[in-house]
Amino acid sequence: MKGAYLDHASATPVRKEVIEAMLPYFEQNYGNPSTVNDMGFKIKQVIEKQRAKVAELIGAGAEEIIFTSSGAEANNLAVKGAALARQKKGKHIIVSAIEHNSVLNSARFLERLDFEVTFLPVDEDGLVDPERLSEAIRPETILVSIMHANNEIGTIEPISEIAAVCREKEIIFHTDAVATVGNIPVDVNKLNVDLLSLSGVSLSATKGVGALYFRKNLRLMPLIHGGIQESGRRGGTENVPGIVGLGRASELALEELPGKVSHVRRLRDLLVAGIVKQIEQVKFTGHPEKRLPGHASFCVEAIEGEALIYMLNQEGIYSNTGSACASKALKTSPVLVAIGIRPDLAQGSIVFTIESSNRIEEIEYALEKLCLAVEKLRSISPIWRGKAVA
Amino acid sequence: MKGAYLDHASATPVRKEVIEAMLPYFEQNYGNPSTVNDMGFKIKQVIEKQRAKVAELIGAGAEEIIFTSSGAEANNLAVKGAALARQKKGKHIIVSAIEHNSVLNSARFLERLDFEVTFLPVDEDGLVDPERLSEAIRPETILVSIMHANNEIGTIEPISEIAAVCREKEIIFHTDAVATVGNIPVDVNKLNVDLLSLSGVSLSATKGVGALYFRKNLRLMPLIHGGIQESGRRGGTENVPGIVGLGRASELALEELPGKVSHVRRLRDLLVAGIVKQIEQVKFTGHPEKRLPGHASFCVEAIEGEALIYMLNQEGIYSNTGSACASKALKTSPVLVAIGIRPDLAQGSIVFTIESSNRIEEIEYALEKLCLAVEKLRSISPIWRGKAVA
Repeated sequence: MKGAYLDHASATPVRKEVIEAMLPYFEQNYGNPSTVNDMGFKIKQVIEKQRAKVAELIGAGAEEIIFTSSGAEANNLAVKGAALARQKKGKHIIVSAIEHNSVLNSARFLERLDFEVTFLPVDEDGLVDPERLSEAIRPETILVSIMHANNEIGTIEPISEIAAVCREKEIIFHTDAVATVGNIPVDVNKLNVDLLSLSGVSLSATKGVGALYFRKNLRLMPLIHGGIQESGRRGGTENVPGIVGLGRASELALEELPGKVSHVRRLRDLLVAGIVKQIEQVKFTGHPEKRLPGHASFCVEAIEGEALIYMLNQEGIYSNTGSACASKALKTSPVLVAIGIRPDLAQGSIVFTIESSNRIEEIEYALEKLCLAVEKLRSISPIWRGKAVA
Repeated sequence: MKGAYLDHASATPVRKEVIEAMLPYFEQNYGNPSTVNDMGFKIKQVIEKQRAKVAELIGAGAEEIIFTSSGAEANNLAVKGAALARQKKGKHIIVSAIEHNSVLNSARFLERLDFEVTFLPVDEDGLVDPERLSEAIRPETILVSIMHANNEIGTIEPISEIAAVCREKEIIFHTDAVATVGNIPVDVNKLNVDLLSLSGVSLSATKGVGALYFRKNLRLMPLIHGGIQESGRRGGTENVPGIVGLGRASELALEELPGKVSHVRRLRDLLVAGIVKQIEQVKFTGHPEKRLPGHASFCVEAIEGEALIYMLNQEGIYSNTGSACASKALKTSPVLVAIGIRPDLAQGSIVFTIESSNRIEEIEYALEKLCLAVEKLRSISPIWRGKAVA
């Protein structure tokens, strides 16, 4: 059966090279890096090598990487860890209104510990305005967290400008880069951030592993308290195979990134051009240029996104209706609300995320089936009246 | 080279059956359980099946299992999550003095949030006295956390008696069962606990996965905030391959537990009898009967544990000098201090943990080399004066 997997932001197959790298660490090299024997020492060295590989991908020092179990854990550690370590200085933090749930809900948790949180609005393209951020900063502000790119609308935020605002006011700045690391070049020094989260899933590594970059010597309250692992910043036996996979995936990403960016951009542009040409009444979401290269997102007038996804799914085509974590929550996407999309139009949201492994034929196939599905759903829609609706 | 891996509490090879179960979930069945497509639905069902398997191993309901990234994360979630969800009722918690670092340091974190913590002493065998616990309980006590067994001295705590005390006073009771699940029968209803942590490592599953049992409807503040995963109790994309491995390992543990217990006990008893017969001035630690069946722990007079471990390591024999997480912290083990071992004697601590895969020949080999190593180290020890020292 023909098909096209175009939901890489939700999940992506682990690459063969990554699986191969991981395999020896299940049954053969199974030592615990914290033990004082030769197996432990060897594994400890293996972990440090992976740390250097992940660091290299983002221009960091190896000693600035903490391995976590997911991008979400990295976000929790960054937001809660940085805030709780600085609460004597002040108890105000700022996050954007379109952050991932792991940042938003960490901020809400801090509210329960008597922190104040400003949820910064974004414009209709999903952009945070650095000036508006500057105005929101108070003397007691200790942390700002703004994502590098949003997975639902693809917009890339002006991180280095935002970072400059924070740097000037000596406020710790975290960016959730789960959507960008592996998809566009990311350099912690060019971005000028203090903390940056990334996820194995975005790098075609396995689920169950992520990492947090923290600027050297930055104080962090651990999220998972425990032993001396990760220099005391994250307890629990290290997920050695997962970490080895993340290291290998980081190496591959570094090698392949330039080629990947142009490939997925070409496919994405093809998809978007086809939609513009063939489907009327489509509202593209997110910034038209400042966006992830393999990311297309839009809302189709008079259509239920889930019905559309289901119909495409029947044809072997995979897409999503927002972030995977939110898609089952059955409410209007807060991201689409934040960029001012009408609730009924937001119901027709659909997101395609493209990877290196995708081919032109898949895009053409998806486009064909998408047009047919929209036509069919509109033909039975009680609210579809053709062009006049707009 | 001959050898004997007798440090299974620190790390254990992942079983072939577990690796086989995991493999299809890297490259083939890579869906995200939170997505609304057929791949997501299938993976969601797979996860629920694993939840039932883990639940069955400990006599719980499937809906009472939360998957985590480690036993340490499960301990953090239990202690912080239960305490923070109940802080309006009171801010006092009780833990034993010999808990794992992930419990002790979670408790210390709560102290920073204005909780009061009682660190309950243990007797010279490492046992918590339920009566003493009862006396420590105050009107504002909201949580008690006592481990099922201690990995450093092997002692199994009287959990159901402790639970009865907590139940009577309507206090939430958590037990860290990382050292017991997979090693002795564990039933959450017989133990009568509200929360119980377990780890993949102890079940010969992979590193990077653990679980927390929580009694149905028990309120918990998430540790990792995020989306709707794990019924909103733990954010982050699920570690699908790790969870599948934990499920398979739980099935195997359930089938094999009775045979395993008698096998490892026999080997342990052989090792202990040999030491008693051949090495003088050895102080066995932990309770002589109420202990993990595959666990031998003792302190050797006038010996540095690390030197002994190193010498055994040269002969291919793996042992430990306490819990793996603590072993690099380079201070006297707090567990040995808590049971009243003299600091100089505590330096000579050594722990052997035996698994199903170990054979009699390995025990005999380890015993032979252990005797030689002790003799050699004592021959060069400035403080060894023979029997008279005791």
